[in-house]
Amino acid sequence: MQRGKLITFEGIDGVGKSTQAAVLESFLLRQGIDVKRTCEPGGVPVGEKIRQILLHEKEDLSNLAELLLFFAARAEHVHRVVRPALEQGQWVICDRFIDASYAYQGGGRKIKSGWIDTLVKWVASDLSPDLTILLNLPSEHIHDRIPSNQHDMFRASVSDKIPDNFESEEKPFFERVRNVYLKRAEQEPGRIEVIDASPDKETVSGEIIALVKKRWPETDNE
Amino acid sequence: MQRGKLITFEGIDGVGKSTQAAVLESFLLRQGIDVKRTCEPGGVPVGEKIRQILLHEKEDLSNLAELLLFFAARAEHVHRVVRPALEQGQWVICDRFIDASYAYQGGGRKIKSGWIDTLVKWVASDLSPDLTILLNLPSEHIHDRIPSNQHDMFRASVSDKIPDNFESEEKPFFERVRNVYLKRAEQEPGRIEVIDASPDKETVSGEIIALVKKRWPETDNE
Repeated sequence: MQRGKLITFEGIDGVGKSTQAAVLESFLLRQGIDVKRTCEPGGVPVGEKIRQILLHEKEDLSNLAELLLFFAARAEHVHRVVRPALEQGQWVICDRFIDASYAYQGGGRKIKSGWIDTLVKWVASDLSPDLTILLNLPSEHIHDRIPSNQHDMFRASVSDKIPDNFESEEKPFFERVRNVYLKRAEQEPGRIEVIDASPDKETVSGEIIALVKKRWPETDNE
Repeated sequence: MQRGKLITFEGIDGVGKSTQAAVLESFLLRQGIDVKRTCEPGGVPVGEKIRQILLHEKEDLSNLAELLLFFAARAEHVHRVVRPALEQGQWVICDRFIDASYAYQGGGRKIKSGWIDTLVKWVASDLSPDLTILLNLPSEHIHDRIPSNQHDMFRASVSDKIPDNFESEEKPFFERVRNVYLKRAEQEPGRIEVIDASPDKETVSGEIIALVKKRWPETDNE
């Protein structure tokens, strides 16, 4: 059985990752490819419970506890979902993966990247994505797209305490996240493809599908 | 403000840690010492939620996810409870701490001790206990004391699947746990005191209080 491909979607909140992951899933299914679409944190019962802690205890969570919870959820997700699916030849489309930890916990929360390297090595050393699609927005668009939903676990937690202080507190957080994502794309141009997320969603989908066809010509049956 | 002392209780399940921790707390309070008694995992709201995952999802939890969850709970517990109490001059009595990770996750679950070293360094590098009381039972007594409660998170998870197989599955788990505890006591005789837990609880309490008085003569006011 040939191992499946691992495709991850990354980018800041509200940028359209879930939508684009679903469009890519439909496209691949039409090409006769067996696809497993999943997301982090979550995807398994333990992961969902951890996600609830990350959502509801965010105010009281130290950055280190948050990091360890994300990786506990990832350990389960990789062990129960991602690795078995790949081994069965399924293509896995994952909404956020390793890069999100570097961007959010590393960039956003300023946790040492060496700590994240260590956890990645323990949890997913053999699982570098075959392709990562980084949906990117120009800096001035970030404010528009960030969901106002207080329950988004990926926001800077300070924002809930100072809801009117977006400009001074939350935007720098997302700028740091975005900058780490872009830096990683520069460092790994063969794996991470940066897609401009500012056009309408059909245009963005078209670009993603074009690059998937180019990378894996067997998916170009249309 | 002089930093308080950190006293931890360790040992396998059912050995009397909570009882003895409560007796020591009462003794220290009578000596006019401000005491905070706590336990792991738990002690803070996030820790209680993680404890629920460890209890109820044990069957489905990989060893690595379990390890990371224990340390996420510990990160919160140390950050919110242990370190602030010590800094305020309180003596902290903690039912299980760092040594339990080496014994249960390292010995019991066979996780590399280097991984545990790394997590300890991140979470509690400055918090080596001033005194650890290891309650020890002779090997042949282990079976008698292990609680039959299916909800004890410290049991070998295999036991719930094979309830009649204690001798072949569960006892070796606890033997490994016990052996790591004893080995650590040999390596750190100045910190870890091994107390025989097989006599009645008053005898055990007497021994513990005697060694606390000897170590800190200011507690000997009786």
